Amino acid sequence: MEQAEFNLRRREYRDAVETFLSGLFTEKTHYSDLYDSMRYSLLAGGKRLRPMLALEFARLGGLGENWADALPAACALELVHTYSLIHDDLPCMDDDDLRRGKPTNHKVYGETMAVLAGDALQPAAFELILTAPKLDAARRADCALVLAQASGQHGMVAGQVLDTLHNPQTAQELTEVHNLKTGAMIRAACLMGCAASGSGKKLWEAAENYAGQIGLAFQIRDDMLDVIGNEETFGKPIGSDQEEGKSTFVDVLGLEGCANTISVCTSRARSAVEQVPGHEFLWYLADQLAQRDY
Amino acid sequence: MEQAEFNLRRREYRDAVETFLSGLFTEKTHYSDLYDSMRYSLLAGGKRLRPMLALEFARLGGLGENWADALPAACALELVHTYSLIHDDLPCMDDDDLRRGKPTNHKVYGETMAVLAGDALQPAAFELILTAPKLDAARRADCALVLAQASGQHGMVAGQVLDTLHNPQTAQELTEVHNLKTGAMIRAACLMGCAASGSGKKLWEAAENYAGQIGLAFQIRDDMLDVIGNEETFGKPIGSDQEEGKSTFVDVLGLEGCANTISVCTSRARSAVEQVPGHEFLWYLADQLAQRDY
Repeated sequence: MEQAEFNLRRREYRDAVETFLSGLFTEKTHYSDLYDSMRYSLLAGGKRLRPMLALEFARLGGLGENWADALPAACALELVHTYSLIHDDLPCMDDDDLRRGKPTNHKVYGETMAVLAGDALQPAAFELILTAPKLDAARRADCALVLAQASGQHGMVAGQVLDTLHNPQTAQELTEVHNLKTGAMIRAACLMGCAASGSGKKLWEAAENYAGQIGLAFQIRDDMLDVIGNEETFGKPIGSDQEEGKSTFVDVLGLEGCANTISVCTSRARSAVEQVPGHEFLWYLADQLAQRDY
Repeated sequence: MEQAEFNLRRREYRDAVETFLSGLFTEKTHYSDLYDSMRYSLLAGGKRLRPMLALEFARLGGLGENWADALPAACALELVHTYSLIHDDLPCMDDDDLRRGKPTNHKVYGETMAVLAGDALQPAAFELILTAPKLDAARRADCALVLAQASGQHGMVAGQVLDTLHNPQTAQELTEVHNLKTGAMIRAACLMGCAASGSGKKLWEAAENYAGQIGLAFQIRDDMLDVIGNEETFGKPIGSDQEEGKSTFVDVLGLEGCANTISVCTSRARSAVEQVPGHEFLWYLADQLAQRDY
């Protein structure tokens, strides 16, 4: 695989995801202010990393050129990710005014609606999976379980509790917060692809290991960009972690330590999938995430 | 069926539900403050009406004496109901200090934790259904879909948007709010029993009609109790709707009109299930709900 082929497939996934998402919550009702609020955050851009991982693992897991069969399940991840961002930005959480360079949901729609839009995105995500036309009942149930287990009290929400209410400080504490808050959903994305394609156990294991490494590298890079990033490319104010008094990987590892750890994680991510036939896209993606400035 | 037999079965269902719920979120972790907050509201009492409906329809739908096979799915309804109460009570929603005679979740655990406890109860509900040991993949997927469709942007959350942000006034507007906010989940409870037992289409239809009638009667009775109820039995302050400037069924129908409508709904609920063999429990339940003072 050449870089151009990687770029092309990445674009294909991204376009498919954007098209799918932009078709959601378009019904005209007299409570479509709710739908407007959901769509505002859902369609505010973003890397669409989670759906992309799900689609690639679905392709590798057996769907091949029919990877789009997994689109509803892949996009469900983005709904849950979006709800988590809306709630994270609330006044009682991080109290952020900007997200991806735009006013946060509650700044536009008010706090009440922001809570409710987030609340509604959760069941909407499960509904997408459970009505995916090309998946049988067993795969639907598997995909929905992957999402449920990653996003709740053993995963994403637990991480948010630690991050917001427990003031993590050491590298170990930060790693745990990351593993729960961000890592669990990146892992879910990779496993969702396996579940949607009914893949064998080997790919599940590879997906799990790959996800663990790129997930950690992803978070460390995020902390670095909060220091060395460009506000316009990064989409959020630089230095906001420090302003909020949050300890980050840059605090405990230093910028050079961060870069080294990312390099180790990326190399391990590559190893995790090297036995998977057709793994080149995942290699390019790991490299790209390690170097990203967005 | 005699009244005593009804009471006995009701008690059996209730005990099974309480026992099941009290076993949840008991793991000891260093973020068990999250679990404490979830359990605080989940175990704060309540009628357990939704799980009870699910269990009875599961019994009628074919599980018979093995109705407990549907317990995880039935209890999932209570998790979602509980999350909705926690979020409804938030300062940016109804801003309530008391719920079922006890301080509301955010009064005890703070607003941040209350949002997160609610957020975590949603995926936990889906996880319960999707790991229910006695249900096959098809029934799990059906149950999860029933829950997803009832609790989101076409159901409960839409109702909450109308109720909190749209100031409904007429009987028609109030009925719509109710149908979405409360009715959708009562309907889901009845359908969950059908889904968990893999019942035939006839029971689904009967469940849908029965649920529509008792759901409306339930909400009208709630509005009446806010005027004529006893604070201790009812578990929330009497007159709070009026204090919050909310229009209710009592405002538009009068107390006598409310009583008459409840009577009509109850009679229609009875008719809806009269062809279902073994429907007596549902008859008693409809009668009891119409007369409740709690």
